[in-house]
Amino acid sequence: MTKASEPAATTASSDPTDGLHPLDDTVQLQHEGGDVFSGRTTPAYANMVGPFGGATAACMLNACCVHPQRLGDPVSITVNFAGPIADGPFRIVARPVRTNRSTQHFSLELTQPGDEAVLTTATAVFAARRDTWSATEAKFPDHPMPSPDSPLQGRMFRKKRVAWIGNYDMRFVHGTFPHPDHPMPGTDSVTSLWINDLPPRPLDFISLVAISDCFFPRIYLRRQRVAPAGTVSMTTYFHANRASFERQGIRPMLATARAQRFSEGFFDQSAEIWADDGELLATSHQIVYFKD
Amino acid sequence: MTKASEPAATTASSDPTDGLHPLDDTVQLQHEGGDVFSGRTTPAYANMVGPFGGATAACMLNACCVHPQRLGDPVSITVNFAGPIADGPFRIVARPVRTNRSTQHFSLELTQPGDEAVLTTATAVFAARRDTWSATEAKFPDHPMPSPDSPLQGRMFRKKRVAWIGNYDMRFVHGTFPHPDHPMPGTDSVTSLWINDLPPRPLDFISLVAISDCFFPRIYLRRQRVAPAGTVSMTTYFHANRASFERQGIRPMLATARAQRFSEGFFDQSAEIWADDGELLATSHQIVYFKD
Repeated sequence: MTKASEPAATTASSDPTDGLHPLDDTVQLQHEGGDVFSGRTTPAYANMVGPFGGATAACMLNACCVHPQRLGDPVSITVNFAGPIADGPFRIVARPVRTNRSTQHFSLELTQPGDEAVLTTATAVFAARRDTWSATEAKFPDHPMPSPDSPLQGRMFRKKRVAWIGNYDMRFVHGTFPHPDHPMPGTDSVTSLWINDLPPRPLDFISLVAISDCFFPRIYLRRQRVAPAGTVSMTTYFHANRASFERQGIRPMLATARAQRFSEGFFDQSAEIWADDGELLATSHQIVYFKD
Repeated sequence: MTKASEPAATTASSDPTDGLHPLDDTVQLQHEGGDVFSGRTTPAYANMVGPFGGATAACMLNACCVHPQRLGDPVSITVNFAGPIADGPFRIVARPVRTNRSTQHFSLELTQPGDEAVLTTATAVFAARRDTWSATEAKFPDHPMPSPDSPLQGRMFRKKRVAWIGNYDMRFVHGTFPHPDHPMPGTDSVTSLWINDLPPRPLDFISLVAISDCFFPRIYLRRQRVAPAGTVSMTTYFHANRASFERQGIRPMLATARAQRFSEGFFDQSAEIWADDGELLATSHQIVYFKD
């Protein structure tokens, strides 16, 4: 059995702007004692309303990672986006509600000063994993990486008003952001893209959970236009371990997503994040609100 | 927008044995006031250790459904199986942590008398859904239903010591429980089966969430033998509404599941539950611990 070792993720630093990667900056937390951690949104990961959901998920996961009672590494996390987070400080309470011999369950809530309402909830499972029989059934899509100057590299997407996009190198293989100049049939909602933190950053659980929320809403593809939409709940399962991260380093990953059903204002999305050597790093699922 | 109307599910009754369906019996809750509900396990849904996870998930969902402040119907639920539930009484605290105009977020914990530790946590999203554009991208498998005397109907599975299996009519199309007399190649972990509550019971959210945990561990298929395994966290997305339930009535559903990756003691599973008319009722995902 692997031992719980050094923290999996970013710990708080006294100077948030001291040459940190923007992702490490945005997930920075101060331990206020007990189960309480304080953090704040950063402009780099701003979305249309509040922060990018992937950044919020990364903050929630980081609160578990830096918790003094943490056991092992992340196995799964579910993040529920209950209400809009305002730009500014927030508080995360991360309770390790149950610690077994080799697994640990966290329950988390995020609030902001002056607002009693809970804005984000989460549950996470950590484990000290050990070697077993292993196999991957999902098929590696193995799409070649488009060149940096590909017309599909997501430049149109990046031009939109949302800041967080600027922290990712996105090169779409197919299912890119809809654009009047590039009409697509819209018969399915599949997107495949090569994606990397920008600037490149050594892969870890924090980056992986943020990237699992990198897809624009699938409804855009099916309707070939932008519509109000937002993730309500996201669950990510981690298959990668620290050795996977060392192998992957700072190279881009292949990410794919598709919806299964759209109905009555919600659709579900299932996604896969693959290492460039064909290792399935994470599978992720979400249910998304949309207006039509 | 549809209005929050009559409770979606089973409310508490004064006599738990009064001709109730075993599922309605096992999810029965007494409202103790505020956010607190009391229930108890029933022998009919016993698993090898503690109750069938699907029954526990159904109890957690029911606590939200019968909560006096409930808004709308279930959109998603994540249930984390943190520790073994002993046979006997339990207490569920179901807090509506955030209620928006048309969505509501619950956080739940299950405990048992004399044990301070949390045994199950959950988060759930409810919504007053409204008509929108709709489409289903997942493909209905449309397997014909095996006859009741099919050798693959799961009789072998049902003979095992677990009681809960007796509450389901399971007719396997493929990927049945491994058995020395019926060797299978074990090259994938796909199971498809027709399934129904036994005795048949009008479909609702409660039945649907229980059925989303009906699959035996995928590791059995790949290794062609039984191994210690248990669901750690399960997430179900509900696509069905009350009209879907009225159409489906008490007829069997087609359920499929497959794993995506097995590694270091955990695998993930993605499942679909289909109405017999080809409507995708729910998609469900879980991460499962296994020993090899």
